[in-house]
Amino acid sequence: MEMNGREKNAENGIESEEQMSLETSNIKKEKNDQGAEEMSVEKIFENKEVPSWKKQLTVRAFVVSFFMSVMFCFIVMKLNLTTGIIPSLNVSAGLLGFFFIKTWTTLLEKSGLLKQPFTRQENTVIQTCVVAASGIAFSGGFGSYLFAMSERVIKQSEEGKAGFQYKNPTLGWMIGFLFVVSFLGLFSVVPLRKIMIIDFKLTYPSGTATAHLINSFHTPEGAKLAKKQVRELGKFFSFSFLWGFFQWFFTAGDDCGFASFPTFGLKAYNYKFYFDFSATYVGVGMICPHIINVSVLVGGILSWGLMWPLIETREGDWYPAGLSHNNLQGLQGYKVFIGIAMILGDGLYNFFKVLSRTVAGLVTKFHDRSASMHIPTVDSPSPTNKPLSFDDQRRTRLFLKDQIPTWFACGGYIAIAVISTLTLPHIFHQLKWYHIILIYTFAPVLAFCNAFGCGLTDWSLASTYGKLAIFTIGAWAGTSHGGVLAGLAACGVMMNIVSTASDLMQDFKTGYLTLASPRSMFVSQVIGTAMGCVVAPCVFWIFYKAFPDLGVTGTTYPAPFATVYYNMAKLGVEGFSALPKNCLKLCYAFFCASILINMIRDAVGKKRGRYIPLPMAMAIPFYLGSYFAIDMCVGSLILYIWQRINRAKADAFAPAVASGLICGDGIWTLPNSILALAGVKPPICMKFLSKGTNSRVDKFLAPKP
Amino acid sequence: MEMNGREKNAENGIESEEQMSLETSNIKKEKNDQGAEEMSVEKIFENKEVPSWKKQLTVRAFVVSFFMSVMFCFIVMKLNLTTGIIPSLNVSAGLLGFFFIKTWTTLLEKSGLLKQPFTRQENTVIQTCVVAASGIAFSGGFGSYLFAMSERVIKQSEEGKAGFQYKNPTLGWMIGFLFVVSFLGLFSVVPLRKIMIIDFKLTYPSGTATAHLINSFHTPEGAKLAKKQVRELGKFFSFSFLWGFFQWFFTAGDDCGFASFPTFGLKAYNYKFYFDFSATYVGVGMICPHIINVSVLVGGILSWGLMWPLIETREGDWYPAGLSHNNLQGLQGYKVFIGIAMILGDGLYNFFKVLSRTVAGLVTKFHDRSASMHIPTVDSPSPTNKPLSFDDQRRTRLFLKDQIPTWFACGGYIAIAVISTLTLPHIFHQLKWYHIILIYTFAPVLAFCNAFGCGLTDWSLASTYGKLAIFTIGAWAGTSHGGVLAGLAACGVMMNIVSTASDLMQDFKTGYLTLASPRSMFVSQVIGTAMGCVVAPCVFWIFYKAFPDLGVTGTTYPAPFATVYYNMAKLGVEGFSALPKNCLKLCYAFFCASILINMIRDAVGKKRGRYIPLPMAMAIPFYLGSYFAIDMCVGSLILYIWQRINRAKADAFAPAVASGLICGDGIWTLPNSILALAGVKPPICMKFLSKGTNSRVDKFLAPKP
Repeated sequence: MEMNGREKNAENGIESEEQMSLETSNIKKEKNDQGAEEMSVEKIFENKEVPSWKKQLTVRAFVVSFFMSVMFCFIVMKLNLTTGIIPSLNVSAGLLGFFFIKTWTTLLEKSGLLKQPFTRQENTVIQTCVVAASGIAFSGGFGSYLFAMSERVIKQSEEGKAGFQYKNPTLGWMIGFLFVVSFLGLFSVVPLRKIMIIDFKLTYPSGTATAHLINSFHTPEGAKLAKKQVRELGKFFSFSFLWGFFQWFFTAGDDCGFASFPTFGLKAYNYKFYFDFSATYVGVGMICPHIINVSVLVGGILSWGLMWPLIETREGDWYPAGLSHNNLQGLQGYKVFIGIAMILGDGLYNFFKVLSRTVAGLVTKFHDRSASMHIPTVDSPSPTNKPLSFDDQRRTRLFLKDQIPTWFACGGYIAIAVISTLTLPHIFHQLKWYHIILIYTFAPVLAFCNAFGCGLTDWSLASTYGKLAIFTIGAWAGTSHGGVLAGLAACGVMMNIVSTASDLMQDFKTGYLTLASPRSMFVSQVIGTAMGCVVAPCVFWIFYKAFPDLGVTGTTYPAPFATVYYNMAKLGVEGFSALPKNCLKLCYAFFCASILINMIRDAVGKKRGRYIPLPMAMAIPFYLGSYFAIDMCVGSLILYIWQRINRAKADAFAPAVASGLICGDGIWTLPNSILALAGVKPPICMKFLSKGTNSRVDKFLAPKP
Repeated sequence: MEMNGREKNAENGIESEEQMSLETSNIKKEKNDQGAEEMSVEKIFENKEVPSWKKQLTVRAFVVSFFMSVMFCFIVMKLNLTTGIIPSLNVSAGLLGFFFIKTWTTLLEKSGLLKQPFTRQENTVIQTCVVAASGIAFSGGFGSYLFAMSERVIKQSEEGKAGFQYKNPTLGWMIGFLFVVSFLGLFSVVPLRKIMIIDFKLTYPSGTATAHLINSFHTPEGAKLAKKQVRELGKFFSFSFLWGFFQWFFTAGDDCGFASFPTFGLKAYNYKFYFDFSATYVGVGMICPHIINVSVLVGGILSWGLMWPLIETREGDWYPAGLSHNNLQGLQGYKVFIGIAMILGDGLYNFFKVLSRTVAGLVTKFHDRSASMHIPTVDSPSPTNKPLSFDDQRRTRLFLKDQIPTWFACGGYIAIAVISTLTLPHIFHQLKWYHIILIYTFAPVLAFCNAFGCGLTDWSLASTYGKLAIFTIGAWAGTSHGGVLAGLAACGVMMNIVSTASDLMQDFKTGYLTLASPRSMFVSQVIGTAMGCVVAPCVFWIFYKAFPDLGVTGTTYPAPFATVYYNMAKLGVEGFSALPKNCLKLCYAFFCASILINMIRDAVGKKRGRYIPLPMAMAIPFYLGSYFAIDMCVGSLILYIWQRINRAKADAFAPAVASGLICGDGIWTLPNSILALAGVKPPICMKFLSKGTNSRVDKFLAPKP
């Protein structure tokens, strides 16, 4: 659902990331003047010794990973709770990891204390650990299923009604829940790594791109470029952080500050059309491809510019007049359910699309495998029928050197599944042991499907599998037994398994291409996941305590997908009875439109399909409004102009600039929430009043004679 | 008083302009790889025919000049009425004039209709005409002596008192007044042109720099650079205009909008420390040398950061408590009179300095003349004892070709003086015919002194001579006969004469260096002055009608020097009786400090003197506050960083960027005042409230249950 790095990657963040790494390798190519780039990669590193898997797992790597995990958890959490759009942060993780360790080792080298040089395997370990930890911040559902269970979110949807079941977040059960569900995915796909990576030679575009990036960092030219990129990142990080700090001073009270700036006038502001000066989403817009940004804007114009104002004129007819603006019986209902319809339509279409490709791919692969051939993949663009290349030979040898026994994987899976089945019903009373056993029986298959589909298309369907669990388990439990909460909890279990499974396989691919051992990858992923299970709930807890209106529509942190997930679960359990008039018809229409648009996108081919908006992206502003869409389009525009002025420079530095903008603003949320927790209020309110209101206020404020 | 282009040029705007033209000629030099740059200028143009003086005065030149005059009148008027700091706009006038005519001729050339090519003589004619017209916007005193006579300004200084004399501006008498006084200066120095330009070879840095600029435009490389500069100018012009437009939307009501942005907090805002987002003053800061910007900031910190808060603690002791903030008996008195003391100290020091240099220079020149030698000047850096160079020969020949008969000049002067003597007492009843005859007797001498001093030092002392008139004529007329108004009117007469005299001589120098005929220069100056006499009052009239609080302290257009001039005149007539306690002592201290600082500046030499602030610049924020100083320092900072990154590019393009910023924002005042005249109010107020006030306002605005 969320535009996460590991979700929709093929059309998302990673596209630009891949371009970037291609660009950097282009620069390298030009400098080396070598045609056979494929051949050269491992030749360059031929003289460098590959450390043993235990030596790849250094203490310094995990220290750096821990700090970066905290940072990325803050960033991902902020994105989760503001819009749910999460761009790929791999480039920034790669850059920063490289920067920290490189600084460290350079310092030690100068003082003569360096025992172990910084290798690309160690870099891969950091990358894996950080991505695993911040992945939990996404798949932990703090902006979706988990927070959807809280009283605060449900109260908005069930306005005026009493007696609904809820489960408020507390630090204890969140950490416990994550620990019992997050490791299953890892164990379920470990035995399949050789088939996926060596035999099928699956692409895993994200993993491949990350590997290219790390490889390039460790060549002399790459390191020089990386240094420049880090400097750009640092510059924009500082700017973004200071800008966040500056903005803070003007936010005493609601609707104060730059985030409420009515750039296009007050009327447009009321319909959520304004530029909110968020460095984060300008950065996100620079990372996401243009079509995503345009889709979001088109969705915003369609909904808040056209449909909602039209539906508003029917107040009193289609829905009762005078309802509060959060009431799902009123306009809010249209916003939420039409959005859900589009998201489900898109999800369903892509589920079947990826599934059919997975099956087709599997058939081909098994056929090819017996003939010991493989279909073309991204990192070998020319179809090679020759025996294995030097790179492949070396990579395969090292990948197969360190084995992870299958009994270990199977035993681990069963042990954790047993613990999990015993523990989970204590956390969620609505979720019964037989629900969990059902999930765990099918989970390995779905995890494999997701890992395989992701390898082919870079498209992780974790949240689609999660929705599947919501509807099946929710309906099974039924209204009387708290089906809504059971569904949401089941969604969490399912999402964590399939999401970590595809993550791990991406990392194996990265490891394969950087000669990192599968064992060190696995250990790093386990440690990263464990970190995430502790850090992510703590970060969420800080947000939850610092901002008492977290999750409330129209505030800084509306957590839009919490409301969406709750209502999806409710829809699954209770059906369509509660929808306002004509809402269901509109939902059907948008559900079909969503599928239709996807079909057209695929039908017209990749070239023209690029100009057709994505329904998933269009649906997000239905509920939130267009303000972040405008930020993102500003980002797009900046990138476009930059590319027009200097294409090579823009491609090399735009991801670093965007990462700087995102990270700086994201990290500012840490001091921001500490200030909020300490009860420090900003001193000034920058208020926007209409002409009439202003003269009333001026009269009110004038000193009494 | 005002940091006008023709005033304090040596240390001001023109310094950077000169650098720029030196830079452009450096580029040329590098390209040509020629050492003897001096020789090359007229050689380059050797094949180009110089048109006759009548052909230099084309209709198209005056059409373009008219439109540019209107534009520059708006810009100068805005600067007059906001702070009184007017940077040198010669570069932008030169660039834009070149751009308009070049576009015009290129279009005609393509369509085959071009009869007369665009020559540098024509360019000089435009330059002269525009500078003459916009010069009237400054020397017309709309921000100083003329507006100082209005009821609105006097009422603030004479708070609560009745029966004071005033003369409100009306379009009729303003145009009449300017016509009868503005041409005298021209006629008074025309006969001296040969002595000043050919015999004395005076430098006239502004005129020389402008000539270099125009010459460079008409070489192929120069034209290319100019084209790029114009593009930069256009870009920043549009940005600045649109930014002004955007800001407008948020200014419904007082203390609304970006101009009231409390960048450093509300407490700092109350003491006028804030960044007011004015593109104009950022541009001004980029044109003025760093020391001016720093001086203004130092003055602001000294006064509003230190002295005024300290004096405020004496409320009830030094001055009565509870006075309105405009009352000169209170804190406002300290602000105005200490500022006046510094300005007078600086003026007096420089008057004697320039006078002594003038006398010394005259003695040397006459001595040299008889020995037919000349001292080194800017455009011949190496002392040449050889006979005249090719350039000088050619220039001298053409300069002496077209004569202006001395009888014409003398006759003109006497005729206008007679008309003026008969007319002026009808405009200002307080000014008697014998006052005027006294002024007109001494005026030619003072005009010569000013033109000569300006030629040596680029330092026009027009407003110092004006102040001289204020004190002498004011004291002569006395309180009972409206000495204040008489003094101000006399100031106007004097300023116009001496200011236009030095302008004309600058233009003769420019003409000399670009081979433009003295006749065409004179005619162009006369036409430009006539344009200015009509356009400038009309532009002022638009401001006056559009903004009813024009001239009121603390508003957008406080016209600071109007208050200063009024109080100076009053001081001259009535003495020090009205000053609050200890104010006179402080005035003496600052008067002496001002002279002392100037002496130190001169004593330590040019190199270290650059780091000592200028008292004149320090005095301006005494009355106004530091907000524009912060804008200017931002401009300085931008320029500094730009120079650090790319010195050559910064030097070539910074004046164009700055001009764009100034012109765009200046031109925005035209639609802005039209909107104000039409009664269109901006729709939104961007208000800045303290935490406490905000919660009160929120309660007030909350819908009543």
